[in-house]
Amino acid sequence: MYPVTQTNPVELTGKMIIGSSLVRGTGETVYGVDPRTGDQLEPGYAGANADDVDRACQLAEQAFDDYRNAPVGVRADFLDSVAAGIEALGDTLVQRAVAESGLPEARLTGELARTTGQLRLFGQVLREGSWQGARIDPGSSARPDIRQRQIPLGPVAVFGASNFPLAFSVAGGDTASALAAGCPVVVKAHEAHPGTSELVGRAVAEAVRIAGLPEGVFSLLYGDGPGVGTSLVTDPRIQAVGFTGSRGAGLAIVAAAAARPRPIPVYAEMSSVNPVFVLPGALATRGAELGAAYAASLTLGAGQFCTNPGLVFAPRGPELDTFLDAAAKAVEGDAGAPMLTGRIAKSYRDSAARLTGNPAVTVLARGQRPEAAAGGQAVLAAVEADHFTGDESLEQEVFGAASLVVRAATADDLVELARSLEGQLTATVHADPSDHPLAARLLPVLERIAGRVLFDGWPTGVTVGHAMVHGGPFPATSDSRTTSVGTRAIERFLRPVSYQDVPAGLLPEVLRDESAGVPRRVDGTLTTE
Amino acid sequence: MYPVTQTNPVELTGKMIIGSSLVRGTGETVYGVDPRTGDQLEPGYAGANADDVDRACQLAEQAFDDYRNAPVGVRADFLDSVAAGIEALGDTLVQRAVAESGLPEARLTGELARTTGQLRLFGQVLREGSWQGARIDPGSSARPDIRQRQIPLGPVAVFGASNFPLAFSVAGGDTASALAAGCPVVVKAHEAHPGTSELVGRAVAEAVRIAGLPEGVFSLLYGDGPGVGTSLVTDPRIQAVGFTGSRGAGLAIVAAAAARPRPIPVYAEMSSVNPVFVLPGALATRGAELGAAYAASLTLGAGQFCTNPGLVFAPRGPELDTFLDAAAKAVEGDAGAPMLTGRIAKSYRDSAARLTGNPAVTVLARGQRPEAAAGGQAVLAAVEADHFTGDESLEQEVFGAASLVVRAATADDLVELARSLEGQLTATVHADPSDHPLAARLLPVLERIAGRVLFDGWPTGVTVGHAMVHGGPFPATSDSRTTSVGTRAIERFLRPVSYQDVPAGLLPEVLRDESAGVPRRVDGTLTTE
Repeated sequence: MYPVTQTNPVELTGKMIIGSSLVRGTGETVYGVDPRTGDQLEPGYAGANADDVDRACQLAEQAFDDYRNAPVGVRADFLDSVAAGIEALGDTLVQRAVAESGLPEARLTGELARTTGQLRLFGQVLREGSWQGARIDPGSSARPDIRQRQIPLGPVAVFGASNFPLAFSVAGGDTASALAAGCPVVVKAHEAHPGTSELVGRAVAEAVRIAGLPEGVFSLLYGDGPGVGTSLVTDPRIQAVGFTGSRGAGLAIVAAAAARPRPIPVYAEMSSVNPVFVLPGALATRGAELGAAYAASLTLGAGQFCTNPGLVFAPRGPELDTFLDAAAKAVEGDAGAPMLTGRIAKSYRDSAARLTGNPAVTVLARGQRPEAAAGGQAVLAAVEADHFTGDESLEQEVFGAASLVVRAATADDLVELARSLEGQLTATVHADPSDHPLAARLLPVLERIAGRVLFDGWPTGVTVGHAMVHGGPFPATSDSRTTSVGTRAIERFLRPVSYQDVPAGLLPEVLRDESAGVPRRVDGTLTTE
Repeated sequence: MYPVTQTNPVELTGKMIIGSSLVRGTGETVYGVDPRTGDQLEPGYAGANADDVDRACQLAEQAFDDYRNAPVGVRADFLDSVAAGIEALGDTLVQRAVAESGLPEARLTGELARTTGQLRLFGQVLREGSWQGARIDPGSSARPDIRQRQIPLGPVAVFGASNFPLAFSVAGGDTASALAAGCPVVVKAHEAHPGTSELVGRAVAEAVRIAGLPEGVFSLLYGDGPGVGTSLVTDPRIQAVGFTGSRGAGLAIVAAAAARPRPIPVYAEMSSVNPVFVLPGALATRGAELGAAYAASLTLGAGQFCTNPGLVFAPRGPELDTFLDAAAKAVEGDAGAPMLTGRIAKSYRDSAARLTGNPAVTVLARGQRPEAAAGGQAVLAAVEADHFTGDESLEQEVFGAASLVVRAATADDLVELARSLEGQLTATVHADPSDHPLAARLLPVLERIAGRVLFDGWPTGVTVGHAMVHGGPFPATSDSRTTSVGTRAIERFLRPVSYQDVPAGLLPEVLRDESAGVPRRVDGTLTTE
């Protein structure tokens, strides 16, 4: 064991971070692989064993009370400090993430800014104070004095995602929102980008040290396969889980959490085909333009987005043909890109083959460029609505740049087609003003199946803000009542507690009469003074 | 089938309510039983079959869109109208509830007022508007326009509770909050009070008719055993469940909901022993008074409250003896009361016998009055802390007027004893000012295990307001992130949706620029204008 801070912050050690210590694992060793070349990247990262998981969870539990009771400003400054530490890694971090993911440098530079931006946004959320949910029902001769606030759930396990090595990984949205809520975090790094994970993890651990917080506020473990993850999810000290990944892995985590002697909430963002509805007026006035934009959204980042448009619904006819011709041309001209890992590329090719092998499906276009080492060609396909209905396999997510266009007999049919869909992260409508009567019928259907409804754009691209919902009904997520992106993500890790007739001197600060400057609901009336 | 409204509202029919129709069941017939006499009460209520459940759920789904999209004021007026309808039943309702529960008339008169009060409170919540969760992140050249609101989950199944025939049953807190959220409700009546359920159910159905709402907004089904409940919970149209009852039944519902192809949230309020900590200063200055008050809280309503004080922790010594003597005297003098049902009374006697049969447990007092037909004598028992620790059976809820006092070696030990407890609805501290340093160490432990922490009172008695939490960590409830009493209960049945670049004319009203008077968060800033 070495203290985290006695090492060069940009030199990789291949070690886990357990509190303030760097620890070499004893499990199977994973290596990053450059998907552009297939080259194995040093160093190797040996996985955690049961003792490592136990130690990280024990430290997290030990840190919890001090961390949650630290002044809110200390926690906000800590998040800012994490952001500054990640920024200081700069090009070293971006280059390692490029090497481990094959994603373009510009994308990862942007993702780094998004990651630090959301850490700082949660700092602002903390200082604003609404997250505390302060409510005061003053007592009287007839009733007791009752006051309510939100407290954090406890240590949280976060699983890094394959497709966002920064923004949904070690210090991504789940970690930022859990730390903001006052929960220590134990991260299970994604096996595809261990070096990126180490760099970010050490920046977090260093920020813990600078802030004088207990070391257990943050740990980072490695491990391939379900072993380490299952140990984490079933550890009695872990009180909630954040996950972004496949439906199979997500459902396994949900099941493990539900089978605990004391079940815990799991926020798993799993699978979505993000249906797009192109209405007749939009098709007629800008079909070619929309077709090209569709292909661009589909092939962005080799289609490796949770919000990739996997299904498009439109009424058949010459206008749809124009749209499809433009999309097909763009797909054929797509330069392609390596996929994140060999495993993901194989899964993509298998899933795409299953889709295109369906006898009802017609392939309209395929990417024509040679495949990269771990790449997959884009696929554009079509099916008649009659065949789509009743064949559930056509609604399954293909993670990658494959998309299916469903030709409806009439524009009116789009409403019923929408109604038949399962839960989604997003649902999109392209509509001209002439389409608004139909769109008005479609919207109430779409809001029931999706977490975000968007018009005249493409679902790829999720802005981090106060009003964003990145969530949605099952199976898009395991819990539709929340979002994993945006400021409301903090609510996932909080629960309300009420305090009845607690003496003034013992009340939590935010609930004292004299506390001010934080939004509170007093006797039912919201006050922001 | 008969229309609901062609019958005398105070004459019992023995029929279920499926939308606007009164339907006689075809399943096993249950009768109310007067626990004071053991007499069977007419009429019989034949249970629902699978077709009845299907029909109620189908109507609920059909009603959902119209109901959720009705103007908020219509929904608020509807809740007021339900309250007025229940009030109009007046003494007929109270007397039937007395006959079916054996609870005193004064208690049920108060419970009726609580029931109508909380319906009207949710009407106020609707009109105030914060429940809509409106957020607007205005667009710019760099980012899209994103707006967020909360929408209801869909039809909700509610299970009536045995111990609150009005406030936690057909039109109780779960139903009121689900209806407020915009969710149609299908109630499974508790088999112990079918007549009370019919009276209230017909008042709700009549309010649906008066408001011109779709009939499927409300249905009421009967049935003994798990059959009807399981059919309801697993019906694909049901989107959430509210339940108050035993741990066994609650966990069965949670498991059934999790095993659905599309799992749904379950809000099950299950079991709690509501630990009370009596600190040395309080013991010394008012030990006898506290002992008597403890016995009064314990024996209230034959101990049939979720918040009954089942465990008391205090440091041993002569002050504790004074407390116990007073409590024992009061328990011995307790007049007793019939329990709600023969099944509950039997379960109480079995559980109390298990407790008093534990070789480490000493019985301090028992109720001395003859038992009523379905009654159970109060039991006051004690155990040394050393024996309590490590014997999980001593922490199990005994539903009824049995309580265990745990004698700690020192006052300091109370903190560790508190830490060892599982999740609770409430945790109580009795403290004099001299105890506040110890109370300050206890409070952070208690807020981690309970939904409500109270000082210098008794946990029985749950006020309905804005700041109340009636909830808590597992196994007190299946979901600690919520409350089943108080205005925040509405949040259980809502989820956020965001709207990106949706044309102004298609936006939900609360998200339009010109909408005012409802609290909204605009670009991160909370505004109540």
